[in-house]
Amino acid sequence: MIKVGVVGYGVIGQRLADGVALQQDMKLVGVADVAPTLAIRALKEKGMPYSLYLGLAENRPQFDALNIPIAGSLEDLVRESDILLDATSAGVGAKNKELYKKYGKKAIFQGGEKNSVADVFFHGYANYENGVGKDFLKLTSCNTTGLIRSVDCLDRAYGVEKVAITIIRRVADPGDYHRGLTNALQIDKAPSHQAEDLMTIMPHINATGILVHTPVTHGHIITVVATTKKKINKQQALDVFGKHPRIRVVKIEDGFQGNASLFRYARDLGNPRGDMYEIGLWDESIVESGNDIMYAINIPQEAVTIPETIDAIRAAMGMQKERLAAVGETNKYLGLGKWLEQ
Amino acid sequence: MIKVGVVGYGVIGQRLADGVALQQDMKLVGVADVAPTLAIRALKEKGMPYSLYLGLAENRPQFDALNIPIAGSLEDLVRESDILLDATSAGVGAKNKELYKKYGKKAIFQGGEKNSVADVFFHGYANYENGVGKDFLKLTSCNTTGLIRSVDCLDRAYGVEKVAITIIRRVADPGDYHRGLTNALQIDKAPSHQAEDLMTIMPHINATGILVHTPVTHGHIITVVATTKKKINKQQALDVFGKHPRIRVVKIEDGFQGNASLFRYARDLGNPRGDMYEIGLWDESIVESGNDIMYAINIPQEAVTIPETIDAIRAAMGMQKERLAAVGETNKYLGLGKWLEQ
Amino acid sequence: MIKVGVVGYGVIGQRLADGVALQQDMKLVGVADVAPTLAIRALKEKGMPYSLYLGLAENRPQFDALNIPIAGSLEDLVRESDILLDATSAGVGAKNKELYKKYGKKAIFQGGEKNSVADVFFHGYANYENGVGKDFLKLTSCNTTGLIRSVDCLDRAYGVEKVAITIIRRVADPGDYHRGLTNALQIDKAPSHQAEDLMTIMPHINATGILVHTPVTHGHIITVVATTKKKINKQQALDVFGKHPRIRVVKIEDGFQGNASLFRYARDLGNPRGDMYEIGLWDESIVESGNDIMYAINIPQEAVTIPETIDAIRAAMGMQKERLAAVGETNKYLGLGKWLEQ
Amino acid sequence: MIKVGVVGYGVIGQRLADGVALQQDMKLVGVADVAPTLAIRALKEKGMPYSLYLGLAENRPQFDALNIPIAGSLEDLVRESDILLDATSAGVGAKNKELYKKYGKKAIFQGGEKNSVADVFFHGYANYENGVGKDFLKLTSCNTTGLIRSVDCLDRAYGVEKVAITIIRRVADPGDYHRGLTNALQIDKAPSHQAEDLMTIMPHINATGILVHTPVTHGHIITVVATTKKKINKQQALDVFGKHPRIRVVKIEDGFQGNASLFRYARDLGNPRGDMYEIGLWDESIVESGNDIMYAINIPQEAVTIPETIDAIRAAMGMQKERLAAVGETNKYLGLGKWLEQ
Repeated sequence: MIKVGVVGYGVIGQRLADGVALQQDMKLVGVADVAPTLAIRALKEKGMPYSLYLGLAENRPQFDALNIPIAGSLEDLVRESDILLDATSAGVGAKNKELYKKYGKKAIFQGGEKNSVADVFFHGYANYENGVGKDFLKLTSCNTTGLIRSVDCLDRAYGVEKVAITIIRRVADPGDYHRGLTNALQIDKAPSHQAEDLMTIMPHINATGILVHTPVTHGHIITVVATTKKKINKQQALDVFGKHPRIRVVKIEDGFQGNASLFRYARDLGNPRGDMYEIGLWDESIVESGNDIMYAINIPQEAVTIPETIDAIRAAMGMQKERLAAVGETNKYLGLGKWLEQ
Repeated sequence: MIKVGVVGYGVIGQRLADGVALQQDMKLVGVADVAPTLAIRALKEKGMPYSLYLGLAENRPQFDALNIPIAGSLEDLVRESDILLDATSAGVGAKNKELYKKYGKKAIFQGGEKNSVADVFFHGYANYENGVGKDFLKLTSCNTTGLIRSVDCLDRAYGVEKVAITIIRRVADPGDYHRGLTNALQIDKAPSHQAEDLMTIMPHINATGILVHTPVTHGHIITVVATTKKKINKQQALDVFGKHPRIRVVKIEDGFQGNASLFRYARDLGNPRGDMYEIGLWDESIVESGNDIMYAINIPQEAVTIPETIDAIRAAMGMQKERLAAVGETNKYLGLGKWLEQ
Repeated sequence: MIKVGVVGYGVIGQRLADGVALQQDMKLVGVADVAPTLAIRALKEKGMPYSLYLGLAENRPQFDALNIPIAGSLEDLVRESDILLDATSAGVGAKNKELYKKYGKKAIFQGGEKNSVADVFFHGYANYENGVGKDFLKLTSCNTTGLIRSVDCLDRAYGVEKVAITIIRRVADPGDYHRGLTNALQIDKAPSHQAEDLMTIMPHINATGILVHTPVTHGHIITVVATTKKKINKQQALDVFGKHPRIRVVKIEDGFQGNASLFRYARDLGNPRGDMYEIGLWDESIVESGNDIMYAINIPQEAVTIPETIDAIRAAMGMQKERLAAVGETNKYLGLGKWLEQ
Repeated sequence: MIKVGVVGYGVIGQRLADGVALQQDMKLVGVADVAPTLAIRALKEKGMPYSLYLGLAENRPQFDALNIPIAGSLEDLVRESDILLDATSAGVGAKNKELYKKYGKKAIFQGGEKNSVADVFFHGYANYENGVGKDFLKLTSCNTTGLIRSVDCLDRAYGVEKVAITIIRRVADPGDYHRGLTNALQIDKAPSHQAEDLMTIMPHINATGILVHTPVTHGHIITVVATTKKKINKQQALDVFGKHPRIRVVKIEDGFQGNASLFRYARDLGNPRGDMYEIGLWDESIVESGNDIMYAINIPQEAVTIPETIDAIRAAMGMQKERLAAVGETNKYLGLGKWLEQ
């Protein structure tokens, strides 16, 4: 059993802990954070299903005052774990890396860290092999992770030469008060980093894109114009998208009218926190543009990187040597693709 | 075991079914709806934890095409139940009532129906006794239900003579596409119906209020200016609010910055769908205004009426004769007030 | 002097009247509407700069009660005008057409009407010649009008073969209460009608696209992936965009961060109603995608079709025979392109 | 002619300059700012109707590069003016005060500065006399300015003892990208500063209140529960509100459905920038609550403080000694109350 520690118990850290806890070949040692945030208070109110390690000793009195039990220090968590999932704020991971190295432990960083923090920039489906046995991996960001799922899926089936993407980005998560946008669309300088990141993971593809921020909190939507080696039609695209365990093909006519429909559906499914690991892909969005194919996907930003992060544990620890074996195990424990069997 | 059927499996119906399923002295017979909505598709994907009855026979082929098993007709559900919780769209409940009467069954209607559909306009804490043994009860709406919890709480402790409320109303639920408002506040003609409804339930109180719609999807916020018989101070208000199992007193300084913080916290608690039954009440909102007391509450509109609806079953079926005994049973099975013991 | 009547004094009608009033070779006879809307009340408060004709005789008492002077009936307006600009709600224009025909008058319809209402589907820059001397013209919609400006501009310089567009659509105008969307993105079935309309106006171009509604009220943003006959670079695109009197090339680094910056800038310019006729095009959005060029534009939906509608008057009435002569007159009187000279 | 300089050419500064330029007994010397913002670029594009003074010499090359003429330094503006309207960012005014003192010039600060910056905290209608002849005045903030208009109006007619307010605050101005909130309501610790500020200006009134931020950009809405010395009814309230030149009584049934209707109406009126100086007060919001009166007002945050700031010039410079004489002059030149005569 691989022992996993989660460092940072925010939006991503909570979900990583939940995802790891579901893997029957991994053991969640615990989670670490520095202050009694709402997420920590919720952990306490739930009865401490996960052990909590403290990253900032001087804050101990705040936890004691709330009767929140502390299992040890961040250093203890590192010592007791085989591998750390670092989900701290951007920049903190690079500092934590020193600690992980001190104890000879591997680590997986999230998309907010600089690429230089890691040996390899990683995506479970697209470049699993590159991560096998490596010490430090960095995941792609939420948009890039979901985008690559769809592009890699097309690429393996038909060959993709070029993509031009438009990212319609949600600007805050539900509950965020430290950022936001009101009645405005905001455009970033192009090309978007997601297009550039895609090229790092899939260097044989030419990618560019424009990103526009929108004042919503549920999933991002990305439109993709993909140039394939040979022209494909909508049905050919559906044939491969429709079998991918991390892509959920949905229809507007069934009621999936947008990102918020998928958020509600995940809540109605009874998923913890109403989360969704899979990207949505709208059947009625797929159109042919000359020799290109165009489609739109939904990126559930809070949870979409969880499966690929767990894939990264499998790669770094050498649990599986092959891509499909690895993602298959992750999918099995997370219940991904079950809807394909119904 | 009281047998309960839920008619209408939308935002409220789903939560009623979940709430009833938790009551150890009730049995959920099943739920009824008329079309394979996203909520029904989610029920199917979850493996049909509840039996589904069909309210519109002509739509049967749509369900068959999706392999959604049908346990019977709406009429079958009515026949097999002791009491029906009607959570259909406004106006439909009045029609369904004929069916309930035909089979001599009791029913509880939600706030959208006209008062005339019921024998009594009901709130579990405020006028439980009025509902005991009655055939048809109508619940107060989400805002009124939450508002009355707080006013009744003050009233029983200190006596309330008058309230003036400002309702800052969320305009759509997460996932709603059939209604919405964009970058606009909308004001309704005063007085708001919630103030008038409060006076129906608590006729000894003078109430008025203004309602303003805001473009958000999480909980409503209501500010209340309450005139008590004798002047009370903030601590006296906190003394009684802080012990109420359906009121959660929260602090801005702990991170509860607004309605969205409460939504996120409920998700992090692992509540199904991220729901919250209790209203939030901000400690730092309580101020004294001359002889009045003023405070602000959060109304989680999707789930707030569930406890009082279950109270209504207890009243109508005569399961408990007394208010506190009844709400106590409901609270116990829903886990309400557990946080008070921590 | 060509005599022009404006039928329908809503968001578009008001702006058409203002635009026509600025043309020194046209005379605005007046405007017609059916009820004392806020726009009409504002006209009254301003002292009736335009004569008002009444489209619904039975509503006369409402106007009299408010002391709003009525210059005549809709029929009078038609009789006194050479050409009518119909800016009524979708579908009403088709009915009004009978009246225009009865008096042998020409008319221009807005994008909401069906194409069949008109002899030609019109865009001032792209197909001016097709409208010359015609009786009934229909303008392209706001998105299509602005989109075509940019595509036509590229096409005349370099040849465009194909475009794939993503429309990030504002869902309501400032002040709209009859429609809206809250915290949700909504996707339409593809291809979007704007892509199809572009192909009607520019049949030599292959176009497709996806439209996503966003909860904002200022300008739409469209990203365009354009395949040119020969590959062009960013500078070549800027060379032609930067000289177009109805395209305003702006920079993020100057402070034009999104659609709302352009709205504010137009207000600060002192434009009536804070309107902007020109589309914005972000310098830093222009990227090369293989042999394609990609860029983003802003569509100020309330006013963008005004110049092309005035071009349509010139075409229908034969005031100018040639495209550049016609749009040049319109631009001169509207002050379009003045910023190019600074 | 009183010579006035405006320091800071942002949202408020632009409007102050426009307002002063309309006063026939004042002369606008010019405006000062430190960087070529969008507002400055718009001033340039309009042909420099106001002289521009530079507050930061080192930025001169940026202005030269854009061919924006500079009339002098900030110090020059101070020297040439009798009084300065300081509309810089919060905190900068206190620093600028040293410069004003150096040259013996008077100044008016906006609500963002600390009270200690000024000799008197000022409101044109409520405490004009306190400002007469003073050197440094500080205006109330936008919400407080509008709120006091209505409370002072009631107070002078009927006597007000106590108010409890709920402020539903817009969170950003149109075009703001540096702040915002997305799908969330945010509550501040009570009592709101606006209630406390009201008590500073009107010390005989007891005031408290709760403020909730909402994700919109147009006017704030405030509900007021006012306790008058003798009970008044709705008509009595309307009698005085309806005659106030800076209060516009509007009706929902006429189409004034919320803050965005008022914003649109001001645009349709042709007001520069679509601004509105007067607060809106909804006729149908006025309700009696026991002996109290309750009502709702709209605060157009961008322009509402302009009239009272101009009143402050009149007070500081001793142009008028009496309240009604002073506000009457301001109103006349700004066109306030003209609608009352129609």
